[in-house]
Amino acid sequence: MAITDIATRTYNHGWRLDPIVRSLLDTDFYKLLMLQMIRRLYPDVRATFALINRSTAVRLADVIDEGELRAQLDHARGIRFTAKELIWLAGNSFYGRTQMFSPDFIAWLAEFRLPEYDLRKADGQYELRFAGPWTHTSMWEIPALAIVNELRSRAALKDRGRFALDVLYARAKAKLWGKVERLAALPDLAISDFGTRRRHGFLWQRWCVEALKEGLGDRLIGTSNVLMAMDNDLEAIGTNAHELPMVLAALAGTDAGIAAAPYRVLRDWRDLYGGNLLIALPDAFGTAAFLRGAPDWLADWTGFRPDSLPPIEAGEQIIRWWREKGRDPREKLLIFSDGMDVDSIEATYRHFHGCVRLSFGWGTNLTNDFRGCAPFPTTGLDPISLVCKVVDADGRPAVKLSDNPAKATGDPAEIARYLRIFGDAGRTEAAVTV
Amino acid sequence: MAITDIATRTYNHGWRLDPIVRSLLDTDFYKLLMLQMIRRLYPDVRATFALINRSTAVRLADVIDEGELRAQLDHARGIRFTAKELIWLAGNSFYGRTQMFSPDFIAWLAEFRLPEYDLRKADGQYELRFAGPWTHTSMWEIPALAIVNELRSRAALKDRGRFALDVLYARAKAKLWGKVERLAALPDLAISDFGTRRRHGFLWQRWCVEALKEGLGDRLIGTSNVLMAMDNDLEAIGTNAHELPMVLAALAGTDAGIAAAPYRVLRDWRDLYGGNLLIALPDAFGTAAFLRGAPDWLADWTGFRPDSLPPIEAGEQIIRWWREKGRDPREKLLIFSDGMDVDSIEATYRHFHGCVRLSFGWGTNLTNDFRGCAPFPTTGLDPISLVCKVVDADGRPAVKLSDNPAKATGDPAEIARYLRIFGDAGRTEAAVTV
Repeated sequence: MAITDIATRTYNHGWRLDPIVRSLLDTDFYKLLMLQMIRRLYPDVRATFALINRSTAVRLADVIDEGELRAQLDHARGIRFTAKELIWLAGNSFYGRTQMFSPDFIAWLAEFRLPEYDLRKADGQYELRFAGPWTHTSMWEIPALAIVNELRSRAALKDRGRFALDVLYARAKAKLWGKVERLAALPDLAISDFGTRRRHGFLWQRWCVEALKEGLGDRLIGTSNVLMAMDNDLEAIGTNAHELPMVLAALAGTDAGIAAAPYRVLRDWRDLYGGNLLIALPDAFGTAAFLRGAPDWLADWTGFRPDSLPPIEAGEQIIRWWREKGRDPREKLLIFSDGMDVDSIEATYRHFHGCVRLSFGWGTNLTNDFRGCAPFPTTGLDPISLVCKVVDADGRPAVKLSDNPAKATGDPAEIARYLRIFGDAGRTEAAVTV
Repeated sequence: MAITDIATRTYNHGWRLDPIVRSLLDTDFYKLLMLQMIRRLYPDVRATFALINRSTAVRLADVIDEGELRAQLDHARGIRFTAKELIWLAGNSFYGRTQMFSPDFIAWLAEFRLPEYDLRKADGQYELRFAGPWTHTSMWEIPALAIVNELRSRAALKDRGRFALDVLYARAKAKLWGKVERLAALPDLAISDFGTRRRHGFLWQRWCVEALKEGLGDRLIGTSNVLMAMDNDLEAIGTNAHELPMVLAALAGTDAGIAAAPYRVLRDWRDLYGGNLLIALPDAFGTAAFLRGAPDWLADWTGFRPDSLPPIEAGEQIIRWWREKGRDPREKLLIFSDGMDVDSIEATYRHFHGCVRLSFGWGTNLTNDFRGCAPFPTTGLDPISLVCKVVDADGRPAVKLSDNPAKATGDPAEIARYLRIFGDAGRTEAAVTV
């Protein structure tokens, strides 16, 4: 009785590979905003990005086949922005602004392709590095993470029965919808998908985003994934990331230059973008140090995205700072996006609702929460703490301190130097699970 | 990015209707066994079957569109046994026996079609009756029930969002798989699908049966659904039903003839089938009365299928009877199929395991358990107690007493007469939910 569509089936089985990255827009929106700035202001800087698996107990090189990893990375290198995608980038408005991307940047994107990669195995891990112009290596971050994470999911699901797989996804869908129902009870919620980098898989992220759209309506304010924003008529969400202060600090060289780097980023950003994009990421070298040294005009910005302290603690710290600067927090925006899930979203919402404008970026626990869903024993679906960070700029080591020492990256001697410059105030060790 | 298969989509939307019954084999196996006996021994008896909705609070005529109901019933009347189906019925072995169906019966089936129906509305319910030769009206029972139940499900799901539907089925799959995992922990379990008549829908029953096959392996001994047995290479399971003693009692007319009818059925059945099919259904007019009057040779039969007392009580009663007759219950089989679900299956299994051979028929709670699954408020997916019973034979009223007075059917005056003949011993009122 079952109808098999032979053409589709033949087509599916004839793929050279089942691609993970299918478009250069399958990346986070902030990469494009940063890229435009990097190209305009720092076109000659060379930056190396490297994959870092903080979950060292998971031996990725034992789990993921090197041939498959190379095939996916090579496939991604073959992708170009399509005409449709470039027309959409040029013609769509982002954060209420038309022509966010300049015509010369769009023309440059038309020629863009991901640069070479260097892959080797060491101690059961993959050493995956991208060296070259910052304007190109930066764009590897999201596809590299998405590829490694999805290959790991696929390995965990290989050779499982058809119904076991059906039940796995059925349970994951039921679980996510339970979360949607809880979130739908928060009337003024504003939330967006931030789950591209650590997603279980492309198709699963797409299901999650479309489910949020149906289940949360206007409370879903968008997605960081540019492709999914385009395909689902959602807002593309995101501003900037740690790589900007990290590279600028690395390039500065002197202690004074390092100390000034976070604020130079803010000036660059304000001059280029302004408006609703004025969201500061305060924790690259510790939030306390950042706020202590911040210029008064930063209090005019729209808001902050705290990314490594516990959310309520981080929010209270920033609200105190706004009040010191004579600003009303109710006119300001806080964006929480560090390992959020429904419990912490609810608690944060209830704590701050009415005191400050709030928005949530929901990542790994949206697009990769399969805990309790597999009808077979496996740890291969537990998310791991995998990042792709800039490690040097023009040959100088790059450092991130973070508010959580477990999230710091860089050479230990350099970390020590940065700690001397920025201090250690307010930094709190916490387990990093995602 | 989504690939739409235009041909399949066009095909799906071009259906005159989305059929519920797609094959005359989409029925319970016992209907075919009984049909062969009816045709051989009672070819001229006329019997009327009628739909009875015991869940009177559910006003089916308000829920189900009459035009859709007629279209589905008419569609079922247009179906014939296909060549493949008849070849399979003739060539397959059932209960270890080849040629279960005689060549002349198979040839007669080739010409079979469902007879006319009479449909009208009264008090918010449908009065759906099938009058005509018993050899034809009997075959309406299962398709009529499947059609009404699935139309009710469809009405509850109409105009729901795509993701709401996806989540509904995801939750139902997750729920069923949770049950499968519990059942898989019972090492000597023997269970079969008995869920055709009250299924949520055809496709859902198929998913459930295939999921049981993958999840329970050999512990799934088969399905009562002939089509699904054929398509999935499973054993077709079932023997006989209440309509046999009900019709024979109705035809008998005298009190003595009524009292003898249940045993006449057993003789007819033994003479025609024998072997593993020697399963007696003891409760048509009360199990206590049936066992009290049963002939000694019945103790040589394979087993019983108690169908209306609580399972442990019913089993103990039958085991006592076997012991009185000097038989070892460990060589006998009990089949439990009345409203079973995982809790009662586990309890019954643990109670009887090692004392008697056990088998379970899992019906409504297998193929229609959507409690807690809908992401929207609805009572339209709760199963109802819908049956299709013989109401008269050659113009004489038919009666079922059952061990549970709530499951009795027939005219009150006739029920009173049957109670005088069989007595009321051991009958226990219990809520009928499915």
